[in-house]
Amino acid sequence: MILQLEKGLAKEKLQQLVSKLSDNGFSTSEVQTQFNHYLVAIGKKEVDIRSIGQLEGVRDIHRVDDAYKLVSRKWRVHDTSIAFDNGVTIGRNSLSIVAGPCSIEGEAQTLKTIEHLNANGLRMMRGGVFKPRTSPYAFRGVGLNGLKEVSALCRANGTLLVTEVMQVSQVAEMHDYVDIFQVGTRNSQNFNLLDELGKAGKPVMIKRGFSGTIEELLNSAEYVFSAGNEKIILCERGIRTFETAYRNTLDLNAVPILKEKSHLPVFVDPSHGLGIRQFVGQMALAAVMAGADGVILEVHNCPERAMSDGQQTLDFTEAARLYGQLKATWELRNSFNGQF
Amino acid sequence: MILQLEKGLAKEKLQQLVSKLSDNGFSTSEVQTQFNHYLVAIGKKEVDIRSIGQLEGVRDIHRVDDAYKLVSRKWRVHDTSIAFDNGVTIGRNSLSIVAGPCSIEGEAQTLKTIEHLNANGLRMMRGGVFKPRTSPYAFRGVGLNGLKEVSALCRANGTLLVTEVMQVSQVAEMHDYVDIFQVGTRNSQNFNLLDELGKAGKPVMIKRGFSGTIEELLNSAEYVFSAGNEKIILCERGIRTFETAYRNTLDLNAVPILKEKSHLPVFVDPSHGLGIRQFVGQMALAAVMAGADGVILEVHNCPERAMSDGQQTLDFTEAARLYGQLKATWELRNSFNGQF
Amino acid sequence: MILQLEKGLAKEKLQQLVSKLSDNGFSTSEVQTQFNHYLVAIGKKEVDIRSIGQLEGVRDIHRVDDAYKLVSRKWRVHDTSIAFDNGVTIGRNSLSIVAGPCSIEGEAQTLKTIEHLNANGLRMMRGGVFKPRTSPYAFRGVGLNGLKEVSALCRANGTLLVTEVMQVSQVAEMHDYVDIFQVGTRNSQNFNLLDELGKAGKPVMIKRGFSGTIEELLNSAEYVFSAGNEKIILCERGIRTFETAYRNTLDLNAVPILKEKSHLPVFVDPSHGLGIRQFVGQMALAAVMAGADGVILEVHNCPERAMSDGQQTLDFTEAARLYGQLKATWELRNSFNGQF
Amino acid sequence: MILQLEKGLAKEKLQQLVSKLSDNGFSTSEVQTQFNHYLVAIGKKEVDIRSIGQLEGVRDIHRVDDAYKLVSRKWRVHDTSIAFDNGVTIGRNSLSIVAGPCSIEGEAQTLKTIEHLNANGLRMMRGGVFKPRTSPYAFRGVGLNGLKEVSALCRANGTLLVTEVMQVSQVAEMHDYVDIFQVGTRNSQNFNLLDELGKAGKPVMIKRGFSGTIEELLNSAEYVFSAGNEKIILCERGIRTFETAYRNTLDLNAVPILKEKSHLPVFVDPSHGLGIRQFVGQMALAAVMAGADGVILEVHNCPERAMSDGQQTLDFTEAARLYGQLKATWELRNSFNGQF
Repeated sequence: MILQLEKGLAKEKLQQLVSKLSDNGFSTSEVQTQFNHYLVAIGKKEVDIRSIGQLEGVRDIHRVDDAYKLVSRKWRVHDTSIAFDNGVTIGRNSLSIVAGPCSIEGEAQTLKTIEHLNANGLRMMRGGVFKPRTSPYAFRGVGLNGLKEVSALCRANGTLLVTEVMQVSQVAEMHDYVDIFQVGTRNSQNFNLLDELGKAGKPVMIKRGFSGTIEELLNSAEYVFSAGNEKIILCERGIRTFETAYRNTLDLNAVPILKEKSHLPVFVDPSHGLGIRQFVGQMALAAVMAGADGVILEVHNCPERAMSDGQQTLDFTEAARLYGQLKATWELRNSFNGQF
Repeated sequence: MILQLEKGLAKEKLQQLVSKLSDNGFSTSEVQTQFNHYLVAIGKKEVDIRSIGQLEGVRDIHRVDDAYKLVSRKWRVHDTSIAFDNGVTIGRNSLSIVAGPCSIEGEAQTLKTIEHLNANGLRMMRGGVFKPRTSPYAFRGVGLNGLKEVSALCRANGTLLVTEVMQVSQVAEMHDYVDIFQVGTRNSQNFNLLDELGKAGKPVMIKRGFSGTIEELLNSAEYVFSAGNEKIILCERGIRTFETAYRNTLDLNAVPILKEKSHLPVFVDPSHGLGIRQFVGQMALAAVMAGADGVILEVHNCPERAMSDGQQTLDFTEAARLYGQLKATWELRNSFNGQF
Repeated sequence: MILQLEKGLAKEKLQQLVSKLSDNGFSTSEVQTQFNHYLVAIGKKEVDIRSIGQLEGVRDIHRVDDAYKLVSRKWRVHDTSIAFDNGVTIGRNSLSIVAGPCSIEGEAQTLKTIEHLNANGLRMMRGGVFKPRTSPYAFRGVGLNGLKEVSALCRANGTLLVTEVMQVSQVAEMHDYVDIFQVGTRNSQNFNLLDELGKAGKPVMIKRGFSGTIEELLNSAEYVFSAGNEKIILCERGIRTFETAYRNTLDLNAVPILKEKSHLPVFVDPSHGLGIRQFVGQMALAAVMAGADGVILEVHNCPERAMSDGQQTLDFTEAARLYGQLKATWELRNSFNGQF
Repeated sequence: MILQLEKGLAKEKLQQLVSKLSDNGFSTSEVQTQFNHYLVAIGKKEVDIRSIGQLEGVRDIHRVDDAYKLVSRKWRVHDTSIAFDNGVTIGRNSLSIVAGPCSIEGEAQTLKTIEHLNANGLRMMRGGVFKPRTSPYAFRGVGLNGLKEVSALCRANGTLLVTEVMQVSQVAEMHDYVDIFQVGTRNSQNFNLLDELGKAGKPVMIKRGFSGTIEELLNSAEYVFSAGNEKIILCERGIRTFETAYRNTLDLNAVPILKEKSHLPVFVDPSHGLGIRQFVGQMALAAVMAGADGVILEVHNCPERAMSDGQQTLDFTEAARLYGQLKATWELRNSFNGQF
């Protein structure tokens, strides 16, 4: 059960609500986000929600029978969108395209990438500075100093930066240099990190665990929201199956299901979701037709020399052609008016 | 190694080729299809293929290093298409749409379905008369007599019939009443059935096993081809994974990969590949964008009363809207000229 | 609901029962096995089973709320055992060990294997004459003539033969030469084959599909039982997962669960369930501790020269050592008296 | 390539080695653990290891062609064991049994558990104070203060405490109150946490990710070792598959394979690996037969009232019976002398 509270509700009034709910067998969590004030009430008893909805301080009340609450579409029927100062909006009335290298390698590469994005009218760059690597001996990214450099270049060019955060202490360190925090597939259920990102307030893109269920992804988003942050993007990036002909099985079924279950924007990462450069374009287009609000692509000025993931990375020419196709596909889907 | 042989090659000439190859350490399989005559040679030794290609009776020779040979694109670079007497062609220059009920229920239903297809310019109907069911106590289909009735109605209306065959002895029994034999997901590696269908000559659509790899699907197609039948359609229909939010995980990654590895047409079945009626349309559109040559859809005049699979079956209104969207999507994809 | 019927029940009495059940909203299947006569009634309505149990001709009646009925332990609480003329009994008070080559290769190999089995006090040999192979160009077994030869040798030595049947028409052809029909993992849901084996009466060992659920395996067994054959063995042989360090993931969890859900004996095939010769012994022992009634092992006089599966096949020395360990492990487990 | 270095090697000597290796195309990582000093050299070039092994300061040198190095058995052939001050040793010549509740609930429960362990001659208790939970609204454990209480009780009774750590900052906070840090399945690839635990020096038990490969688990262990900590236990706890009849698929195949690939001790958690109380005992016994060095069990004075995981938790009577069976099984396995 979600109670939307009046703004500036006095503490004692809030306490009265909590008591009332407790008397009815509900435990409550107070959630204060950038935008709103909520009480999430969890309980098993039947209760007439009108009797609670009429109490002082309650703006609205909704029964939500999913395990996740605040990210559910059962109380917020309209799509959530996320607006940035530079005019970019994610999640409604436009297709978001995020592109850039797997790993940030330095200033020259970043400038080339930004130039490429600008030439194609794109405003969001991806690029990792902390890289989760299976082996401790592999390249782990340029780190915080690299981030600062890249961030300065992005800011100077009006480009938003999406980059992965790997642990709690990095949230504060990276905060001023990041526009969207990315939670990687291996941290999809790193609950402490999700909590911390909930407090940080900056937009968070959560990648689905490579063996995470759709419901687990929504619960991970619930961690961020319930810790205070409504700016969340969900991202499908491929799951692990028995098939070995490609790197991961891109689960496009997840797209319409996530859109149905949650009001949050849904992105797709076909680069990781397939792992084969030659077919990334087709799967990106398929993702848009499946209902994605955005795609995130690995793009590099010279994929053959990329420090990681070159085998699934597009070059600038391929990428530019794809952007146009993505927009045309998005427009066609849009012309169907949500009637499939 | 595949040797395409001259038409009408004398037996003794063929024997000379076999001996020559045997001397070089190759075992051979002679393959005589509706269209061509081949020798498939399997061996590990290095051999100069020109020395064999120049032998009498050899029209052309190709080295194919895949486990499957005749279905590989490594020797036949152009897409295979399958033409029917009623003018329908599968697999090149057009999107194939097959629609109809999961189970054939009787004459009235069939007539309604054919009328619906005709009204939408479609010429291929799906519908099962032998139904593989997990439980022996479930409805197992109307059987051979039902097939004969349905077939007569289809023929009278110029509609092609796609229906599932479950065992070797049914191949002969069903032969005259079927236009495309469907091999179901549970029989995807029923090698005796595949062999028999190879001899039957009629087009065969092989569904991927729900835990079959892409390579296994291609090997199953190789069974049909090597037994004498070049008219094969591959069909992705969802695989088993850990996710329980839907019936199967539709593996659209498989589409571009199958198209790359094989010259055979590739269909997608989003009805089984997802299992949720409400999202079938979006996934069908995604399949087209991923590169599918055709889609096969469960459609029923009244899904709520369907004898099987109602939960994933579109009604006629939903289906008709989707057909138009599929064509528009196919045209857009086509406009990209294969450059993704 | 299962009704055990009186032996020699008159047709009209049976018809009365069917009508009575039909009036109560149940559809019925008559099942006549080697041993008993049943009516399986499927319906959704609540009914007082005593009112039906008291009808003439009903020996006993049981409510079974599983999807499968006759193979469920809900009506038959004691373990089923299968006795052979040569004194061997499967499934109660003893551990069954089946051993032999993947593929039968000829008379000499068979004799060596039988000698090895005899020297170790074993009476059941495995060995395939029809081999399901992913590629049509691989060795497909010595076939029916090979079977006849092997069968004669087994009979002469009092050895039971377990061998795979791949299609309906082979059931009759093989019938006189086989002691236990094996249904391979790819045919685990070949419902026509299961039906035919139900009619054949000989013991049937059904391997779990490599992506088959436990419930599907039990339903496959229900096909055999409901077609007239109570002599069924279930066999866990490894499932497909994301792990690539071995051939299959042996699912020993399935053993106690199958034993709990069904009265049928449960075997384990560690050779396929792992695929690495060096560790087959440990997994066979683990299977016994998990509760298996028997193990089926690939054993060959010279694994390095085996025509198939050599990499997972034990030699005679390794196998002999393992047999003793298996018995010691079984005795230890038995000493726990089913109290874990 | 692993170089074991002389103790107290002078810095400049070390630098000479690094340079020499660099000249040969190897990048190096210096590793200083509780016990030894190593250089791990990664490179692709062929090099005569004797020429390097003879350099000053090198005690021994080993080529290791696995992705992981220090945890590989290719350079350390004997099993690693971990000794504690209270006389307990993990990993050689004895079976380790760890038992206790999923969640620590308070002092009374802890005392009952310790009493139960003592009565059964066990010295290691499991119990979580930080609980990773899918939903943010679920019980997240008693936290650091709870840990301090429990730790005091354990110390007073000579009981070692195994408990889960969830984030980097907790490593220092928990350090003085923990005997073995447990890394949970969701943190199996939390590389920052693994790094930190490598520096902490206390024994670490790493659970396999529920979709982690065996190779990934070994690489996670490599993070801990290469950061300075040789005291590592690997733990199989079930993986995600398509099967829904139980919570996870316990992968006992992993046990002999891990033992073969690595010198580290291998534990099995059958409570999570199956999730059904009734069958935990059998699977624990099977784990021992498969070669496990230890088992970790969920045990509670009253499973029905446990704050988490009650459905897979044994009561004290069941557990006590199992301990004896585990020892008998371990002794039987031991009597086979590693000859399977």
